[in-house]
Amino acid sequence: MTAPRLQSWTAIVEEVTRRIASGDWAPGALIPNEADLAAEFGCSRTTVNRALRDLADKGVLDRRRKAGTRVRDLPDSRARLDIPIVRKQVERRGAQHGYHLLHRDHSAPPPAIAAQLELEAGQKALHLTSLHTADGQPFVLEDRWISTLAVPDALQADFAACNANEWLVQNVPLSTGEIGLSAAPAGAEEAEVLGCAPGTALFRQDRLTRNAGMPVTAVTMLFAPGYRMRLDL
Amino acid sequence: MTAPRLQSWTAIVEEVTRRIASGDWAPGALIPNEADLAAEFGCSRTTVNRALRDLADKGVLDRRRKAGTRVRDLPDSRARLDIPIVRKQVERRGAQHGYHLLHRDHSAPPPAIAAQLELEAGQKALHLTSLHTADGQPFVLEDRWISTLAVPDALQADFAACNANEWLVQNVPLSTGEIGLSAAPAGAEEAEVLGCAPGTALFRQDRLTRNAGMPVTAVTMLFAPGYRMRLDL
Repeated sequence: MTAPRLQSWTAIVEEVTRRIASGDWAPGALIPNEADLAAEFGCSRTTVNRALRDLADKGVLDRRRKAGTRVRDLPDSRARLDIPIVRKQVERRGAQHGYHLLHRDHSAPPPAIAAQLELEAGQKALHLTSLHTADGQPFVLEDRWISTLAVPDALQADFAACNANEWLVQNVPLSTGEIGLSAAPAGAEEAEVLGCAPGTALFRQDRLTRNAGMPVTAVTMLFAPGYRMRLDL
Repeated sequence: MTAPRLQSWTAIVEEVTRRIASGDWAPGALIPNEADLAAEFGCSRTTVNRALRDLADKGVLDRRRKAGTRVRDLPDSRARLDIPIVRKQVERRGAQHGYHLLHRDHSAPPPAIAAQLELEAGQKALHLTSLHTADGQPFVLEDRWISTLAVPDALQADFAACNANEWLVQNVPLSTGEIGLSAAPAGAEEAEVLGCAPGTALFRQDRLTRNAGMPVTAVTMLFAPGYRMRLDL
């Protein structure tokens, strides 16, 4: 491989950037010293030095007098997401929130849910399916399992009158959890409830919430078409 | 309306919770005093007091000696999301990252993008369409506009060799931005590039990034089917 002749420091900045972006020079890796780079690029050490200083100023390279110059790992962008209860989400859009319990039973969940809730085979949990509306239009379909080991009171609660999303926030301090966001096609029943065609692309939120390490609830929320979640960087 | 007779404090807790969840008692609203509630529920003031204390302990009610008892606004759940550059996202899945520039031009963006980038009618921006792969399989399709007012250097950069996602993180300190997450059906061209059927539900990320208040880039990322974004609560 013959290296190109790079006469200007900006051309070297671009070449170094390209090598990092292409992965030739990996994050954390030591790069060749200035003398070697000057020889490779066919330019003066001063030109190489000017380029490396520029990249160090930009935070791309990390230069240490004795340890040499390394590629900095690129920092992640960090976003913050506030997730209000569904009623608030609807109300913040200036709409009236409605809630309908579609189904309630106390039964053994499918294996994937049982594993998430850390239930033994055949152990029952409370299963609730409900629809939240905004000004009477479908907003989100909630398919929820509640561990009655973690929250025995849930068996007595009147989820026809009070939605589980809100009841849980009020009755269980939900300290930790994991959220998965994805896209999913509407199944036949989901499409009917949400008032869209089967196969419509829907925004899906899967959430597992724990209280003091103990799984409390696993919920899948399918939002009606057009839903958009906003985050600030 | 005849109120039900509620003899136990736990029944009162449940009734109060129901009224809050149903929105009858709004967040921030003053609720009736203990004497009035005792009369309404047909129980002793002691029983009402026991229930309200319990709800205050749970953070549902806010009790002040002289100002009365108010419904607390439910706190939002707060999630943190780290968004690495695409190459890192792929590498963290243990896969090899690949990148292909599909299209590049310098042209006037559609009105919605022009508005986001705060360009005047007819003003040009750099348009890049590219595909990121994981172990050779489509990972995400990137449709990006870069404001050459904000980043004139972008016109000289070699985006065939160095992907814009990484180039921008390295060359422009992207301080703020907004992200929209949604689900979208694959269009015909998108489906072809991503190797799926037209209409497939895809996870979509729209991102507008600013540097010192000035719009830098607007990008739409369409992830191949099966993509899931994870957040921690």
